Amino acid sequence: MKRELHVISNGKLSFSQMATIAAEIVDYVDYIHIRERNKTTKELYEGVMLLIQSGIPPSKLVINDRIDIALLTGVNRVQLGYTSADVRIIKDRFPQLHVGCSVHSLEEALCKQQEGADSALYGHIFATRSKAGVPPRGLEELQEIATTLTIPVTAIGGIIPTRVKAVFGTGASGVAIMSSIWDANHPLEAVKEYEKQIQRWGEGQ
Amino acid sequence: MKRELHVISNGKLSFSQMATIAAEIVDYVDYIHIRERNKTTKELYEGVMLLIQSGIPPSKLVINDRIDIALLTGVNRVQLGYTSADVRIIKDRFPQLHVGCSVHSLEEALCKQQEGADSALYGHIFATRSKAGVPPRGLEELQEIATTLTIPVTAIGGIIPTRVKAVFGTGASGVAIMSSIWDANHPLEAVKEYEKQIQRWGEGQ
Repeated sequence: MKRELHVISNGKLSFSQMATIAAEIVDYVDYIHIRERNKTTKELYEGVMLLIQSGIPPSKLVINDRIDIALLTGVNRVQLGYTSADVRIIKDRFPQLHVGCSVHSLEEALCKQQEGADSALYGHIFATRSKAGVPPRGLEELQEIATTLTIPVTAIGGIIPTRVKAVFGTGASGVAIMSSIWDANHPLEAVKEYEKQIQRWGEGQ
Repeated sequence: MKRELHVISNGKLSFSQMATIAAEIVDYVDYIHIRERNKTTKELYEGVMLLIQSGIPPSKLVINDRIDIALLTGVNRVQLGYTSADVRIIKDRFPQLHVGCSVHSLEEALCKQQEGADSALYGHIFATRSKAGVPPRGLEELQEIATTLTIPVTAIGGIIPTRVKAVFGTGASGVAIMSSIWDANHPLEAVKEYEKQIQRWGEGQ
């Protein structure tokens, strides 16, 4: 199984800034998640279309929460959080969508899998500035989730390149990163550091 | 043509409060618009389902901006504003939806009609606290819009019951009201005042 690299937007950039960085890194990542909670419907629609026009294939995009934006832009993957509509309702109505769910425990992960989730995103694994003060969940429960679920489990939270190996060692199918890319002085170099670790893991198997 | 009474939510109530009032007034109104910009996807989905479970027919509901919520709850009418996705994109992808557009001039109204809007909402007609400091547009342009467009035009903004007759005199197909219902001590009595004016107008024609 080729391990995946997911890059998740951080809500701090304009779509124009995102498009520039995304076009640079797109060949080295599997998915770019658009998680922009403070943007309007118009901004989201036009922003995702800008990404697509900038050369990001719709198949590499994941829309957080807003299935309307996914449906209108032709993106087939959505990611749900605890403020989103229920995965069952969405899979019933739009079975063609790949629906990922963010989960925070084995129980929740099993529940979402049972309800029809196609993948899970679990975290945060390590301490990270974006979750300051919330204790990290560590690798142990990640391993339990990754080995118990039949759907792919991606790990998020404080995953620096040197930790990629340990994360994949749990059985996780991918790593998701956020600010370490968007805030980097050289996003492409930052992404390549992750890609190198993923390649190495693949060769070691 | 039976003139319509639209009641638009004001973003200040919980869905539980809205459901109580909506169930009381539903027989006297044509449409209840859900315009709740600060609620999450989960709150919107569950809130609209609560309204439906409280006896509001989906055919009387209109969802502002969020076509995902309309599609997931089985509501067939949406209302777009200037922060929404484009009417053309939505009609192309979901031709079964009735798409209303909020407009603020004859030019914009004609443009939205051309782009596929099924109805228009124009305002604000009279001074209203919810648009304090913005000069009202008055009845003259309303008349121009209502007589020029082929799609129905509903008027909004400061329409107290005694002004209903003058509004319908312009050719507008309906009136939309907001806080005068939700903030009323007796919402049912307030709605009946409007309904009485609408009945009288019908009998006078």
